[in-house]
Amino acid sequence: MQRNLAIDAERLWSTIMASAEIGRGEKDGLRRLTLTDDDKAMRETFARWASDGGYRVSIDRLGSMFVRREGREPGLPPVLIGSHLDTQAAGGRFDGILGVLAGLEVMRTLDRAGISTRRAIEVVNWTNEEGARFLPPMVASLAFAGKESVEWALARADKAGLTLGSELHRIGYAGTAPVGGRPIDTYFELHIEQGPRLDAAHVPVGIVTGGFPTRGFRIEITGETAHVGPTAMARRQNALVGAAHAAVAIDDIGWRYAAGEGKTTAARLDLSPNLPGIISDRATLYCDMRHPEASELERMVAEVDIALADCARRSRCRIEIAERWGFGGFAFDPGLVALLRQTAADLGHATMDLQSEAGHDAYHMASVCPAAMIFTPCRDGISHNEAEDMTIEQMSPGANILLHAALARADR
Amino acid sequence: MQRNLAIDAERLWSTIMASAEIGRGEKDGLRRLTLTDDDKAMRETFARWASDGGYRVSIDRLGSMFVRREGREPGLPPVLIGSHLDTQAAGGRFDGILGVLAGLEVMRTLDRAGISTRRAIEVVNWTNEEGARFLPPMVASLAFAGKESVEWALARADKAGLTLGSELHRIGYAGTAPVGGRPIDTYFELHIEQGPRLDAAHVPVGIVTGGFPTRGFRIEITGETAHVGPTAMARRQNALVGAAHAAVAIDDIGWRYAAGEGKTTAARLDLSPNLPGIISDRATLYCDMRHPEASELERMVAEVDIALADCARRSRCRIEIAERWGFGGFAFDPGLVALLRQTAADLGHATMDLQSEAGHDAYHMASVCPAAMIFTPCRDGISHNEAEDMTIEQMSPGANILLHAALARADR
Repeated sequence: MQRNLAIDAERLWSTIMASAEIGRGEKDGLRRLTLTDDDKAMRETFARWASDGGYRVSIDRLGSMFVRREGREPGLPPVLIGSHLDTQAAGGRFDGILGVLAGLEVMRTLDRAGISTRRAIEVVNWTNEEGARFLPPMVASLAFAGKESVEWALARADKAGLTLGSELHRIGYAGTAPVGGRPIDTYFELHIEQGPRLDAAHVPVGIVTGGFPTRGFRIEITGETAHVGPTAMARRQNALVGAAHAAVAIDDIGWRYAAGEGKTTAARLDLSPNLPGIISDRATLYCDMRHPEASELERMVAEVDIALADCARRSRCRIEIAERWGFGGFAFDPGLVALLRQTAADLGHATMDLQSEAGHDAYHMASVCPAAMIFTPCRDGISHNEAEDMTIEQMSPGANILLHAALARADR
Repeated sequence: MQRNLAIDAERLWSTIMASAEIGRGEKDGLRRLTLTDDDKAMRETFARWASDGGYRVSIDRLGSMFVRREGREPGLPPVLIGSHLDTQAAGGRFDGILGVLAGLEVMRTLDRAGISTRRAIEVVNWTNEEGARFLPPMVASLAFAGKESVEWALARADKAGLTLGSELHRIGYAGTAPVGGRPIDTYFELHIEQGPRLDAAHVPVGIVTGGFPTRGFRIEITGETAHVGPTAMARRQNALVGAAHAAVAIDDIGWRYAAGEGKTTAARLDLSPNLPGIISDRATLYCDMRHPEASELERMVAEVDIALADCARRSRCRIEIAERWGFGGFAFDPGLVALLRQTAADLGHATMDLQSEAGHDAYHMASVCPAAMIFTPCRDGISHNEAEDMTIEQMSPGANILLHAALARADR
């Protein structure tokens, strides 16, 4: 290991701050929903940075951008570094962005040091990681891993009925490269923790051993419209009340498992007709639940069915789980995790093993090739909020571990 | 009383069915929200019917339409009959519409019988009675009664931010007649019951003695956005969960008073950002509660404050009542109510005294002049639903009582 080789932290920080000017939110965070004009502007800036570095940019059919620094043996599978440049509707400046731009910084650092690698290194900006506009989140890496078809992903629609495919065309990012189907040697993702543990313990680096087991539900509540005035309580089937009972029940389950780090979220509720003067007859509630122990998570899931039956009885509505999904509950490649730990030790950085509690594209990539993640601290663990923040000192150790680990893998 | 004088029930029914073709809903009800193109089409049809009858149409600054059949002494205050031609987003064919078109039928009946009246008779179609598009409901009669200014009413905005005033201009119904400020002799409103009692008891006519005391609330819930994954339960301030606790608590209060005909509604809930992946930080919940006894209603209202404090504690959100309103809780003019009872008796129709559980323009008109209402049955009491229904036999007795009572008042 060349211990004197290090990223230019100031350059990486200023690159992140340049990104933070594109799609600024109300409170200095970011509002850069995928495939909007702001996302297009960010993509064009990122592509320009890549071209300025002499790297080749290719766009796949789902709009994911791959920036390639060629290796000495172009036929070998590349080392892939990535994350995403899209944000929540009121998101932060680092979530995802750090991982993509740190990948670019790795390339720039190798260039300045005159280091070539045996394998190519690529940096990817995945389309629609956040899921704030199109469901599911991480849809591009899902298709890259062959778990859903490209056509299915292109047909995802936002609340206004616009599809991912039509919006890709609109902003000029409907690429021609195939989605997946090619060998990848290694996948690395550097990300803010999105939790408070590293920041609270003043540990600069998290080694991510796997993903928190997570289950999600779409719950459909069906009632009956009626006038809010004359309709007797015993005749009401208010879908809003049914959904409220369900949201409270889901939240209560989270509290019962909170001591073991379980958690539940009633995340989104759509109601119709949702007007004063009329009782709503339709509600859709999106929930998820997480627990570090898969067996405990299964117990939480089992409680949902029991709870919803009671909610239906109390609200006189029909309540059913219309869709279920899950992610997490797996371990990253042990060899790669060990490499990250050793790299940190060689660079003199303390680390903490963590499970990721958020979903990441690395989860899907772990089924394509050896994959692993590095976490940096972020202030108070706040993310998906414009107040998301970190310091340049919190950023640098993780970025340097990424540099050295990627170099080690690319020179194999 | 000219007992052989009667409305033409077939003509009135066919007029209502012609209205039911304008803005048809998905299930043969109506979707004719105020000041939409469909509402404009209905207004133009109604104005044409009025002109065909030789009646003068005037439009006031809030778009309410007044159709006048002149009296022998034009200087005397008129007898006013009215209701509304707008509907809920998924409403029925009779709610409001019956009252306006029965008024037109009264004029047509008097014409065919060659009967003149001392006072003019006017029929009014009030703008935005339903409140399904602009809040509050009954905004035009509210301003007619001088309880709010015309400018305030014109500035009401819908969910898309369009104002009542701009939409009146768009459809060509921003009239020039002053809103109120002129003497009215009497106000009558014929309406479907919107409750099941007449239909269940097979009583053809309800004499409305007053309005159910009603209170409404706008409740604001404030939390904090955060990532749904890593944020520990004890750190969450999910506005959706706060609103769900509040909606359940409001519903529970309704159940505690249900035996005495009390009722509560969690009617509308707006959430932001309301996305999967992020905890919502803002929620607005619209609720109302009703009870036939004003003192019991006050007890229900008092329970709200206690309940919301507990909801705030359980959800870790700030919860406050941002706005309160009320209507009902009054008696219609006793002389006019007695006239309706006597008219029904003279025509041989059984009646039942009822309080109205819904809001009506007659509530505001009761502060302008003697006012009263007649209810007809409707099937199973269903309204604010496309399944709202009644028969021609259920419609006729109330319409004939309206005819004779209006004639009696107009010939004074």
